[in-house]
Amino acid sequence: LKIQILGCYAATPRSFSNPTSQVLEIGNELFLIDCAEGTQVQIRKNKVKFSKINHIFISHLHGDHFFGLVGLISTFSLLNRQNELHVYGPKGIKEVVLLQLRLADAYTSYPLFFHELTSSEPQVLLQLSTVEVRSFPLKHRIYTNGFLFQEMPKPRKLDFECASKLGVETCYFQKLKSGFDLVLDNGKIIKNEEVTLPGLPSWSYAYCSDTVYDSSIANYFQNVTVLYHESTFLESEAHLATRTLHTTASQAAHIAQLAKAKNLILGHYSTRYASIQAFKTEAEAVFPNVYLADDARLFELDDQERLKY
Amino acid sequence: LKIQILGCYAATPRSFSNPTSQVLEIGNELFLIDCAEGTQVQIRKNKVKFSKINHIFISHLHGDHFFGLVGLISTFSLLNRQNELHVYGPKGIKEVVLLQLRLADAYTSYPLFFHELTSSEPQVLLQLSTVEVRSFPLKHRIYTNGFLFQEMPKPRKLDFECASKLGVETCYFQKLKSGFDLVLDNGKIIKNEEVTLPGLPSWSYAYCSDTVYDSSIANYFQNVTVLYHESTFLESEAHLATRTLHTTASQAAHIAQLAKAKNLILGHYSTRYASIQAFKTEAEAVFPNVYLADDARLFELDDQERLKY
Repeated sequence: LKIQILGCYAATPRSFSNPTSQVLEIGNELFLIDCAEGTQVQIRKNKVKFSKINHIFISHLHGDHFFGLVGLISTFSLLNRQNELHVYGPKGIKEVVLLQLRLADAYTSYPLFFHELTSSEPQVLLQLSTVEVRSFPLKHRIYTNGFLFQEMPKPRKLDFECASKLGVETCYFQKLKSGFDLVLDNGKIIKNEEVTLPGLPSWSYAYCSDTVYDSSIANYFQNVTVLYHESTFLESEAHLATRTLHTTASQAAHIAQLAKAKNLILGHYSTRYASIQAFKTEAEAVFPNVYLADDARLFELDDQERLKY
Repeated sequence: LKIQILGCYAATPRSFSNPTSQVLEIGNELFLIDCAEGTQVQIRKNKVKFSKINHIFISHLHGDHFFGLVGLISTFSLLNRQNELHVYGPKGIKEVVLLQLRLADAYTSYPLFFHELTSSEPQVLLQLSTVEVRSFPLKHRIYTNGFLFQEMPKPRKLDFECASKLGVETCYFQKLKSGFDLVLDNGKIIKNEEVTLPGLPSWSYAYCSDTVYDSSIANYFQNVTVLYHESTFLESEAHLATRTLHTTASQAAHIAQLAKAKNLILGHYSTRYASIQAFKTEAEAVFPNVYLADDARLFELDDQERLKY
């Protein structure tokens, strides 16, 4: 599981910082989450392969989360993309992209699918063999979703020595790896646990930006491996967080705690702060494993389920 | 007259180059011409004052000329702009910007006016006391305009010594500077040329991007001080210029020659070329005063009507 931060600041792009966009690598898939102005340049700068992005998830239609989408979609065409591209985002996203393509008389070189979201309940958006993606509602000034990326259970590890001692034929190995028990020709039952060991853990990633503090959202991603949660403000500006429907670093840490998350990444910092270090300090008073997103930072999960960058 | 190039490459933004946008300073006004993705960051990087931009001219609705417009309009609001902003561009530009503002539930903090263009004839778009702006039709794959920025005639210089010797009272000085003759109380006629000298020259700037080679457009900006003309290709790729309705460096130089322009700036280079130096060499074989646009380059006109950067 890797998270390449392309941009993680709120509001306007600046010479030295970018609004929200990130690339999640999970279950051998690359997912682009949000797509602010300048995302395609950030993709180039961070050497993410354009061609590997097949699914784009847009949380909401504020400019600092989606003004780069139409440019990226156009650039895919200029690069002569052929693969399908799927875009998931609030209703209206299709109209605004297609209107711009129509005005430019520049339709895509590839099949482009929009999956418009209107539900106020969690939804399964995508099921692949290795990973499933769900949306869940956030509370912001306009219709907004968070996203949960959950790896499918991974195959159990076969104890070959033990299996062959018990006379299990090769053709049953896959069934055992998938967790089933076995009945041999002689009627003997082989319990799965006798010949297999637990597989690799299945990791998950929850993305919450933008939202006001709402403890109930923690129910949508209990025991998540990595939680990305916005922290636009520090507690000293909690009144602004309430007014603009954003979250403080401390509140984000409370959500991580309630969700029993393994790791918390903070981001979507207001550009009013000269340094982001205080966000970590504030959150760590509530929750232990806090990491700061920053533009161009690449997080990677290690075997102990801790983030490195 | 100053031209701040913000971006001058064709097609997609890259880590090290930007698509088309530039700021023209003429007649004490700042005009933004075209507004590709990333323009607002280029404005910051080049230290152009956001608040001084009151008029934006969009040549056509291809992404590399206008995908940055909605972001800039939004950022003006975040900066709490109060002044009117006027946007001139092809029909459709209003719908696409307002749709995005509506979806974001984020209307502007300032009066925003759209002047949608549909004419296939030259038009006066704006008349200020110091400068006039006209559009003229270009031939590209979609509806496209060039723009001519023309300084108003500047006041003639008064020869004070001569004027007082002839008994001209101070109250007539303004009339003389404006070029009128004078009848004194004693009936004596003072010809304007007797007491005034020519004023500063009035400069002009013509912007042509994107267009196929078309010699007739030179009629729209005869004797222009500075001509910016696209040169997407070199002559070696003239077939691509014809096919995609773009111009070669040599063809752009022919337009400068036909228009009797004083200076030619080339830009809108295809990203296929590793170096842009060949564009200058090719154009100089046709026309003497050729300059290469490049991102972040600031051109300034000197008293001899030559460009410096």
